[in-house]
Amino acid sequence: MPVRLDTPDAASLYPVAGVRLGIAMAGIRKADRRDLLLVELAEGTSVAAVFTQNRFCAAPVTVAREHLSVGSIRGLVVNTGCANAGTGESGMVNARRMAAAAGSALGVPASTVLPFSTGVILEPLPIERVEAGLPAATADLREDNWHAAAHAIMTTDTVAKAASERLDIAGNTITVTGIAKGAGMIKPNMATMLGYVCTDAAVEQTVLQDMLRRAADVSFNSITVDGDTSTNDSLVLAATGRAALPGINAGDTPAAVALYSAIERVCIRLAQAIVRDGEGATKFISIAVAGGRDRDECRKVAYAIGHSPLVKTAFFASDPNLGRILAAIGYAGISDLDVNRIRVHLDDVLVAEHGGRAASYREADGARVMQQDEITISVDLARGDATATIWTCDLSYDYVRINADYRS
Amino acid sequence: MPVRLDTPDAASLYPVAGVRLGIAMAGIRKADRRDLLLVELAEGTSVAAVFTQNRFCAAPVTVAREHLSVGSIRGLVVNTGCANAGTGESGMVNARRMAAAAGSALGVPASTVLPFSTGVILEPLPIERVEAGLPAATADLREDNWHAAAHAIMTTDTVAKAASERLDIAGNTITVTGIAKGAGMIKPNMATMLGYVCTDAAVEQTVLQDMLRRAADVSFNSITVDGDTSTNDSLVLAATGRAALPGINAGDTPAAVALYSAIERVCIRLAQAIVRDGEGATKFISIAVAGGRDRDECRKVAYAIGHSPLVKTAFFASDPNLGRILAAIGYAGISDLDVNRIRVHLDDVLVAEHGGRAASYREADGARVMQQDEITISVDLARGDATATIWTCDLSYDYVRINADYRS
Repeated sequence: MPVRLDTPDAASLYPVAGVRLGIAMAGIRKADRRDLLLVELAEGTSVAAVFTQNRFCAAPVTVAREHLSVGSIRGLVVNTGCANAGTGESGMVNARRMAAAAGSALGVPASTVLPFSTGVILEPLPIERVEAGLPAATADLREDNWHAAAHAIMTTDTVAKAASERLDIAGNTITVTGIAKGAGMIKPNMATMLGYVCTDAAVEQTVLQDMLRRAADVSFNSITVDGDTSTNDSLVLAATGRAALPGINAGDTPAAVALYSAIERVCIRLAQAIVRDGEGATKFISIAVAGGRDRDECRKVAYAIGHSPLVKTAFFASDPNLGRILAAIGYAGISDLDVNRIRVHLDDVLVAEHGGRAASYREADGARVMQQDEITISVDLARGDATATIWTCDLSYDYVRINADYRS
Repeated sequence: MPVRLDTPDAASLYPVAGVRLGIAMAGIRKADRRDLLLVELAEGTSVAAVFTQNRFCAAPVTVAREHLSVGSIRGLVVNTGCANAGTGESGMVNARRMAAAAGSALGVPASTVLPFSTGVILEPLPIERVEAGLPAATADLREDNWHAAAHAIMTTDTVAKAASERLDIAGNTITVTGIAKGAGMIKPNMATMLGYVCTDAAVEQTVLQDMLRRAADVSFNSITVDGDTSTNDSLVLAATGRAALPGINAGDTPAAVALYSAIERVCIRLAQAIVRDGEGATKFISIAVAGGRDRDECRKVAYAIGHSPLVKTAFFASDPNLGRILAAIGYAGISDLDVNRIRVHLDDVLVAEHGGRAASYREADGARVMQQDEITISVDLARGDATATIWTCDLSYDYVRINADYRS
């Protein structure tokens, strides 16, 4: 059951001029399920992307990287039900066929289409079904189809994930709208996570890529459900340039800063939605680490806490077994950490200081906070000015059930 | 339910001349439970130890390190029910009091006693109960008390863990007997894991410490249940020198090699017992990685697989969802890994090669192996001669239940 998460209604997802989306039920793994998404991008759209760091990356990731390096991108095609990963040479052939078929459907070259797949690993992609489904997806292409598109990319997600903003930049209305999927195998760099964010602003490609890198760092690369990194993670940011606002050619102009803020907010909402819908999640946990020498060590501490199955099961049980948090900080890999200086809060409750439980701590206060479905763990390392925040969820029976049953 | 694990019967645990063990029910956390162990070591015993790398190490670990550095050790004292970790300055006072009380009971200086605690973190040690329990433990001191001692150090363990060997070295019968505890928070360097291994051979202290380091590396530091590293892990190797065999002063003599082999076998049996009794375990999984450039990268790959909740839940479900293994190899952090050269076997079944599922693979073969309660995953990286093996278990509903309920 997701933690305080609903799909935004269709009317709140603003169309982005220059982006049309079409979906279909292609029967890739199961019948009567929306499992194919085609996205048409207007000519002149800038496209930036970041991909999984997994060495076993999926065939579509390899093909998408190739196509991005060639030049302008006019289309995206996404299937669920099969990840086309661990599929060797035939997987590459199928990923290329998928891009070519989508290119034909859109009337653009295969090399201008990025293919994406998500689902079970190590099984061959039924490419014929993808090809057979594309005419229906093409017939469905519409600018106001984001809501259906968010549903078409779901796998173990229980809630479709989307976010949208309109903002005014120098008197022009600019739109940023995005969708994402992912609920398990979630970890930085990145997750079984697909995200597509579009804006009608015009942004030069290298500026757009930098915006995406920065936004991904504080959103999709700051979450964890189970510590696993997928073979297929991909995040795309497209800027169609159909708005009247003059083109953005540098990252530090007022227009660029305003646009980046909106992109970052949309990415954070999508990333948090993935955690809120984390497999079996009953609690949404923010882990805020401050006082580090650098951001990297703050993230190490945050992820040591966020990955600990012992911490996560304690949160599931609403049990303020806070020693498990201290233990996780202790093994985060910071060799010269002085544990006597660390302060740990659970929301507003001071839990630990001077190397042990805070004198003021009362179990009833910890228990009160643990009952909430949204909780912040704050850790002050007291050795510098750096900070980092990540988001995670608890570990419940349902995580085991979902992942034990996934293929059945 | 542990995987093929029984406590050896008392008669098969050979006494070690020069080692007497006494237990008591001290009521440290619960009444009517054996929770205190006192070990007396004969004068002249060499003692080696390795401890947790956790920066939040427990007070008794700090005190034990201090006492080891001072000199000859004559006693060990172990309580369960409270880890005396995250307890600040008062925790240090209590750990010193515990060593002093055990020293008084044994008639030796406090500085010759090593204290150990295991149990809940962040709660004060009821030192008065430890002190009050020591007379009963002292009265109970016997050489043939290993079986009871193995029970007295259990926490969430469901089976007491012990192993014992007699071997002939140059016409002398030498004994190696050990006990261990631990079932969760298990990861290299090391675990909520306590281990005590004794021999009646005479071994010079630096040789003994080197033997312990090597044996720990291939046993207790080659297991994982949940990836958490405890604040309290300690492994002690004591050599009383009461056997007739001449003293061992170098590691490369035939006597040293024979003794080391026995110590290593005992440590591996104890370490595997911890995994077999892993919280909620239904399967015992060996992960053998070969063909690495060095042992470190083999261990990285093995632990990426062994820590993956997705892999572990698939094993729990007996589901040959083997793509999750490939994904874990891919994110193990080896940046120049060529995934097309990797071969993966599940027992004798070739699962993956050439970057995908092996052509010869049949799901029925994978399903057959997955039904077993002992399974070996073999990974050949095909880029060198190094190897490493670790042991882990699956992730089940019961892991969540046990850790959600631990304090209740």
